[in-house]
Amino acid sequence: MTIKLLITGGTIDKVYKELTGQLVFKQTHLVDMLNQSRSMVDTLSEVLFLKDSLDMSDANRALILQKCQASETNRILITHGTDTMVKTAKLLGKEINNKTIVLFGAMMPYSIKSSDALFNLGMALSAVQTKKCGVYIAMNGQVFDFDKVEKNKGQGIFISS
Amino acid sequence: MTIKLLITGGTIDKVYKELTGQLVFKQTHLVDMLNQSRSMVDTLSEVLFLKDSLDMSDANRALILQKCQASETNRILITHGTDTMVKTAKLLGKEINNKTIVLFGAMMPYSIKSSDALFNLGMALSAVQTKKCGVYIAMNGQVFDFDKVEKNKGQGIFISS
Amino acid sequence: MTIKLLITGGTIDKVYKELTGQLVFKQTHLVDMLNQSRSMVDTLSEVLFLKDSLDMSDANRALILQKCQASETNRILITHGTDTMVKTAKLLGKEINNKTIVLFGAMMPYSIKSSDALFNLGMALSAVQTKKCGVYIAMNGQVFDFDKVEKNKGQGIFISS
Amino acid sequence: MTIKLLITGGTIDKVYKELTGQLVFKQTHLVDMLNQSRSMVDTLSEVLFLKDSLDMSDANRALILQKCQASETNRILITHGTDTMVKTAKLLGKEINNKTIVLFGAMMPYSIKSSDALFNLGMALSAVQTKKCGVYIAMNGQVFDFDKVEKNKGQGIFISS
Repeated sequence: MTIKLLITGGTIDKVYKELTGQLVFKQTHLVDMLNQSRSMVDTLSEVLFLKDSLDMSDANRALILQKCQASETNRILITHGTDTMVKTAKLLGKEINNKTIVLFGAMMPYSIKSSDALFNLGMALSAVQTKKCGVYIAMNGQVFDFDKVEKNKGQGIFISS
Repeated sequence: MTIKLLITGGTIDKVYKELTGQLVFKQTHLVDMLNQSRSMVDTLSEVLFLKDSLDMSDANRALILQKCQASETNRILITHGTDTMVKTAKLLGKEINNKTIVLFGAMMPYSIKSSDALFNLGMALSAVQTKKCGVYIAMNGQVFDFDKVEKNKGQGIFISS
Repeated sequence: MTIKLLITGGTIDKVYKELTGQLVFKQTHLVDMLNQSRSMVDTLSEVLFLKDSLDMSDANRALILQKCQASETNRILITHGTDTMVKTAKLLGKEINNKTIVLFGAMMPYSIKSSDALFNLGMALSAVQTKKCGVYIAMNGQVFDFDKVEKNKGQGIFISS
Repeated sequence: MTIKLLITGGTIDKVYKELTGQLVFKQTHLVDMLNQSRSMVDTLSEVLFLKDSLDMSDANRALILQKCQASETNRILITHGTDTMVKTAKLLGKEINNKTIVLFGAMMPYSIKSSDALFNLGMALSAVQTKKCGVYIAMNGQVFDFDKVEKNKGQGIFISS
């Protein structure tokens, strides 16, 4: 089984930029994360763009949809910022029903010591192999159906809706 | 849904002891790991013992079996050393068929920077919620049936058998 | 020998705030850092405030000066943001000449994996014990006299001036 | 000023070997450590060997002495296991009096999250630039003269003797 990994940015890939004191994108950490994980599953990764999900355009979302539709493998992981992850999941869920797609990200960048990134990758990689066709979000220790989840922004957690 | 977490030791919980230069057990890190994960799933953890799995006795394994049988929740995670994880999984798989039980551990202790521990916890916590009744091992990015897995000790990875 | 440690904030103590995605102050990490360092030197730490050094007022700097003058021990460490560290050092250097004072901070917060914080603490703690009376800055692997150093903001490093 | 860095092994450079569960040497981490430190001091590093200091032979120590004597720069850092660090320091201190030599190591490997390695490098790099000619040990937050230090093996700390 080969798993497609589409990378779009989000908190998970942010790093601290010393000259400005801000968190920015340089490159993805997903390959490093898969190596640290000792994962032996075949994974094909592709960076679509590296964006804060609040900055994603309709065209960006259309590209994600198109890449999922065109994917030859029907098990797809997507890294995504948490702020609009539900919006993208709903778009994919409306259009695609013959593939297993799991979106995930992190509340704390992988570059920070106490990050949840590696855990969330584990949740998502497990779900993409074990769940039937559908679109899911793996965050906060749970695998949610795309149409039964929302982000509580006040608490910074994903909950059932 | 509440998940029972039985803790038995293994590499995942080992720490470096400065006075002897050896890796030993002090206490479990699983609660810290769940906090770092931002997991919102109810989890009841219980430390049975902290042992290298090569040192586990038949009585130790019988205790794990008894705790699984007596568990009121039917979704159970077990941390376990990798060397005899398959042996314990086979024992549980032969005796229990009405619960979802997932064993996991780590090749590299959580206390070490490049550990796979948090990823494996994510894999296992996802599998214990999504898989039907049965006994499984979650390691190396895969969720194996208890009777179709072995550890390749030369390479240090779990593979299908 | 007892060393006084005055804590004023700066990048070294910043942490990622999940709800806003920004770096903020919660509490100091210096006690954790000294524990991780296995330092056996007596250290008395005092948090004056936790501020980005660009936000330090004249009153803040006056407080630092007053605390240094009032200190009963004549070996003093000060954590400080890098942007105005030289300014504070010059103020102290003009007013105090009977104590050894070393300012330090970090380009990367201690909460981030690749931080220089622990190294800089080591540089500063060594310098405060080995240098004669005067005011110094310990950054980028060097111990600078307060009146012979500047921060090159384009490169993010301290250099001789 | 250029600083010579002689690398001989010790706990600081040990890593966890997954296949055996033991701590071993693969390669030195000192270049990574200097990069993480944002040190701007010219440093010439040379790996003499990577050994547990309990396994160092008289020939090994003679090589360290010879490298120090032959060094064109008179500021020298040496990484060393803690168990016989004092023995090597005494040998160097008896033979060399026209250079500043600082030995250091770690109680906890750099590869482990809570390591003191980066702090000790900072202590040593500061001391080698600020101390007059002599042989020193930088550990536990102090810079000791070679002939006034011992390791308390029961507590795992260096103390004045």
